[in-house]
Amino acid sequence: MTASGIITLLTDFGADSPYVAEMKGAILTVFRRATIVDLTHSVSPQNIRQGAYLLDRTYRSFPYGTVHVGVVDPGVGSQRKIIAAEINGQIFVLPDNGLLSVVAKDAVPAQLREVSNRRLWRDEVSCTFHGRDVMGPVGAYLAAGGLFEEVGPPLSELSRFELPTVSRIPGVLCGEVTYADSFGNLVTNIRRVDVAEVEIASVFIDGREVGPPAATYSEKSPGSPIALWGSSGQLEISIVSGNASAWLGGTFEGKVKIEVKS
Amino acid sequence: MTASGIITLLTDFGADSPYVAEMKGAILTVFRRATIVDLTHSVSPQNIRQGAYLLDRTYRSFPYGTVHVGVVDPGVGSQRKIIAAEINGQIFVLPDNGLLSVVAKDAVPAQLREVSNRRLWRDEVSCTFHGRDVMGPVGAYLAAGGLFEEVGPPLSELSRFELPTVSRIPGVLCGEVTYADSFGNLVTNIRRVDVAEVEIASVFIDGREVGPPAATYSEKSPGSPIALWGSSGQLEISIVSGNASAWLGGTFEGKVKIEVKS
Amino acid sequence: MTASGIITLLTDFGADSPYVAEMKGAILTVFRRATIVDLTHSVSPQNIRQGAYLLDRTYRSFPYGTVHVGVVDPGVGSQRKIIAAEINGQIFVLPDNGLLSVVAKDAVPAQLREVSNRRLWRDEVSCTFHGRDVMGPVGAYLAAGGLFEEVGPPLSELSRFELPTVSRIPGVLCGEVTYADSFGNLVTNIRRVDVAEVEIASVFIDGREVGPPAATYSEKSPGSPIALWGSSGQLEISIVSGNASAWLGGTFEGKVKIEVKS
Repeated sequence: MTASGIITLLTDFGADSPYVAEMKGAILTVFRRATIVDLTHSVSPQNIRQGAYLLDRTYRSFPYGTVHVGVVDPGVGSQRKIIAAEINGQIFVLPDNGLLSVVAKDAVPAQLREVSNRRLWRDEVSCTFHGRDVMGPVGAYLAAGGLFEEVGPPLSELSRFELPTVSRIPGVLCGEVTYADSFGNLVTNIRRVDVAEVEIASVFIDGREVGPPAATYSEKSPGSPIALWGSSGQLEISIVSGNASAWLGGTFEGKVKIEVKS
Repeated sequence: MTASGIITLLTDFGADSPYVAEMKGAILTVFRRATIVDLTHSVSPQNIRQGAYLLDRTYRSFPYGTVHVGVVDPGVGSQRKIIAAEINGQIFVLPDNGLLSVVAKDAVPAQLREVSNRRLWRDEVSCTFHGRDVMGPVGAYLAAGGLFEEVGPPLSELSRFELPTVSRIPGVLCGEVTYADSFGNLVTNIRRVDVAEVEIASVFIDGREVGPPAATYSEKSPGSPIALWGSSGQLEISIVSGNASAWLGGTFEGKVKIEVKS
Repeated sequence: MTASGIITLLTDFGADSPYVAEMKGAILTVFRRATIVDLTHSVSPQNIRQGAYLLDRTYRSFPYGTVHVGVVDPGVGSQRKIIAAEINGQIFVLPDNGLLSVVAKDAVPAQLREVSNRRLWRDEVSCTFHGRDVMGPVGAYLAAGGLFEEVGPPLSELSRFELPTVSRIPGVLCGEVTYADSFGNLVTNIRRVDVAEVEIASVFIDGREVGPPAATYSEKSPGSPIALWGSSGQLEISIVSGNASAWLGGTFEGKVKIEVKS
């Protein structure tokens, strides 16, 4: 695999955080010609599950050989490992706390190593900011074309949290909302492939009927709830020219039910 | 026109949105050496007028041959066209929904084409995210120096919304606020050229007197309302060391009146 | 000193502001190959002290020869000078209003000049946006390897505000909070070197006891207050898996007391 020279950053530091700038400085110190792209820094503080879903949907748009550094790291300074993994032609550097669970769901890493070679780290390593002192510099080393074997010894397994599964009972398929975007669109864990062999009669969320999936927003009138296959291949529930998250009262269970035609 | 290699992005996706990252990944996949700059992603959801004003004030700072991709796109998936236009030595790729109205106010596009050549698009095109799947890749193609003629067939006209005009009655000139910035400064649609031949007695907003335009903030004391020729050449109304938007109660009509000396 | 080609930006324009985009356009017009990094744009409006602390903690992560442009500029358009300074192998371009006070605390600038050579500025200079029209272009000129002497005549001194000092009374050391980050961690002005020769019995903030500094968050249980040496070398006060700013009620005096073992 050839490095693309691109490094992406996903953190829970908050939009426009000076900590992100410190990570970028550390990266550019190692690899002056890196192209750095922010995936998002708006992961809810220490919300590993949310970070894992956001990482999964965004990394796919990048060229092969891109390095994705993820820092949602409540265990910083404890004994949790830091890992580097190659999956689907891309490289990930992140704490071994489940943050890679969604990306690695259907994939065995082509390479998986513990990040332990201190020669690739910043000279001084703080106890609270391994994004700047460890993951950033190691990501920069790999993005510059450094040898994967140099980061540390091989690992046989990575930490994963249990993913919500799409459960099926006869005539019905159940899933849940994994993420609400800034428009209030609700992204679910139901993929098109999960329902490839059935015909959908209707979609429900938290007991409210949305109807069968539409092809475009323009099929329904403004203010109407609508189900669509979203741009990441997952079922999304929206309000045409509106906000589905607000429609459900902001707090919602997010239980999704699909009724199948018999 | 020679491409500058720079692509700017203006959207209503919200600051720090993962959708912006997906667009950047799609752009870098087509043109690895692109320089990508965020204009802003804080356009109010689906507010084409606001996006049009923000695009107009920001694009002017960029080198000739820059590509500006604008995605405020309530009609995504419907029959609205996507267009590419060359205006004032810069290139714009955006939905044909009026988003170019302010930029194109005083200018006839040197080139104008429909974006329809699918060979320049992403392999898979979703129904809801043409920013990532169409406009981003086509913008990247053009920023890399691709041929304008390749994007699709020529168009003779683009969609425009009606712009508020500065109305004149004897001794008075009327305009309105088009944008409030993060300091609460109110940017109007009255340009210096509109009042080149008159002497201004005083400026009013929503019936409150602000006084004649000052040269710098330091001419008035903190807390005072002040009118100034802003950095984009438009009349702005501010509070010295304060917030004019809050001063008007947050919600405001934004009707501006200039009294002219007779 | 060799220019790194990197320019950082710190402003109070607000995250995702179109004004930041205009500065980047002006910079790229002068130096097409600049690598531009946002330090932060979330400095509170016109809060020079906060900007000075944020600039100090972030610039240190960047390679030598980086240019840092700081625009927190309530005096724009008045007689305040604009300066360029070289300190610790890095270059700063900013208004001479105290914004460099923390960076320059322990350092004499290797070079210090007034920015007055209009040939390096934008052709048209507005009265209200010197970030775009003066500081951005001059920063770009220096980042491209331009001669420091060209920016203007030497200055002998820069403006500084008085920094809070760590006061010592027998058995006690006092300081204060300078910044609350997006996790609610409270960064103080007490540096490790300030207490190198004493043994700390306990840390207090606004009268509440936090205990002696810990090595990592994992030493205390979730919800507990904790003192740590932060990633910038300053004492920080946090809540494990929580928000210390909220714990103190959001508004806080931020008076920190360290009791020393006798």
